[in-house]
Amino acid sequence: MLLYRLGPEGFYAVRDEEGVLRALYSDPYDVRPGGWEFGREIEEEPLGLLAPVAPGKIVGVGCNYRDHAAELGNEMPSEPLLFLKAPSSVIGHRSPIVLPPESERVEFEGEIAVVVRHRLTRADAEQARAGILGVTCACDVTARDLQRRDATFARGKSFDSFCPLGPAIQVEPDLESLEVVTRLDGEERQRGQVNEMAWDPVAQLVYISRMMTLEPGDVVLTGTPAGVGRLEPGQALEVEVSSVGVLENRVEARVE
Amino acid sequence: MLLYRLGPEGFYAVRDEEGVLRALYSDPYDVRPGGWEFGREIEEEPLGLLAPVAPGKIVGVGCNYRDHAAELGNEMPSEPLLFLKAPSSVIGHRSPIVLPPESERVEFEGEIAVVVRHRLTRADAEQARAGILGVTCACDVTARDLQRRDATFARGKSFDSFCPLGPAIQVEPDLESLEVVTRLDGEERQRGQVNEMAWDPVAQLVYISRMMTLEPGDVVLTGTPAGVGRLEPGQALEVEVSSVGVLENRVEARVE
Repeated sequence: MLLYRLGPEGFYAVRDEEGVLRALYSDPYDVRPGGWEFGREIEEEPLGLLAPVAPGKIVGVGCNYRDHAAELGNEMPSEPLLFLKAPSSVIGHRSPIVLPPESERVEFEGEIAVVVRHRLTRADAEQARAGILGVTCACDVTARDLQRRDATFARGKSFDSFCPLGPAIQVEPDLESLEVVTRLDGEERQRGQVNEMAWDPVAQLVYISRMMTLEPGDVVLTGTPAGVGRLEPGQALEVEVSSVGVLENRVEARVE
Repeated sequence: MLLYRLGPEGFYAVRDEEGVLRALYSDPYDVRPGGWEFGREIEEEPLGLLAPVAPGKIVGVGCNYRDHAAELGNEMPSEPLLFLKAPSSVIGHRSPIVLPPESERVEFEGEIAVVVRHRLTRADAEQARAGILGVTCACDVTARDLQRRDATFARGKSFDSFCPLGPAIQVEPDLESLEVVTRLDGEERQRGQVNEMAWDPVAQLVYISRMMTLEPGDVVLTGTPAGVGRLEPGQALEVEVSSVGVLENRVEARVE
């Protein structure tokens, strides 16, 4: 099932297998999908989709696909390399990615995003798996020039609009067979599977939750496969995750 | 005036010059202190103080005091070095700082924290100044060994309990003359003034808001002066900021 969040208030809705969108009465972070209660049928327009989650924190895992580490000239780290991305960078499906004048080179990194269901502190694998609400599509937009200048990544990855998420959360994902594909102006640029990751999503949650408590709605960006590249104004970016759908965002230059 | 947040729900209270604590009816992020409406007198106990803000994001500015950059062997950066700290690391006055088994060396960094009043996007100096709700005491607790291992700082600075904040927000601060003093077991270890900073709080907000929108309740950690040092279980840490008060936190080792 696919969990959406609609504007402007951000209420939840679910699309069933016939494509019908219904209001969700249950709190999806509190009640498992089997117990969900639904309301009336609703139209996506004119409400519009929001990002399906408003995360309290976004934790990224760097260099998680061996081929992407190689293309950046990095060695694979012996432990997951974590970074934080500001929650203010989140945008939803079909909102524009805005290129800031501070960067000469902004790149896309299509990713599978994991949404946390409930609090996880020093979780084991079983607890981490039960603590996943679902997965969605993400782009970890990165100002590559600023990232290379600042070791902390904080500036290069946290500009407003640098974290498209959506269009929906797949709440019954097959975590072992997910695939992410990134297309720029319709042309495939990245393709990666969970089984090519150095640390799979459950292992990532186990690792992260030893360092910091994960809270409901926190998002983990699970890394990007090889093929990252530059974004230019006017381009159309698509990130597709199997069983989720396609996240679409156009690219704009900031107008001062 | 000093703005407190009390448990368990996190309602606001203000202490007046006679030391009387009163419930605050107004939203301090919406109404300026001159227009605040107060309720009944309340007792701090048994409610207990929470951190005076639950930030959406915490932005740190590294190497902002020249003497601290020198003690770490770093050159002064030509622009503020930003990093993000997970909001899940926040604790309040008198909550324990818990040393995790993953680090061999956890250090204190006493700081002046700025709390953001309203949304700031590409603010100029005047807008940034008007967008400051107030200042509080903070400790940017840091696992120095992990920070040196991970360039992103994400792991070393974001363990649970690594961001004590409080006890209150001074909502009428003299931003030009603030001083921070850190004491360990009663002995002074750090002392710094705003006028020793490479970038003062207003300049920091101007800079950060070019990169990422600052939201109400976001916290900026303005850097630490020289004198950082190791924390050991059983020690008592105090961070005092002029006109705010003293933030007290004891140090504990994590019991597995």
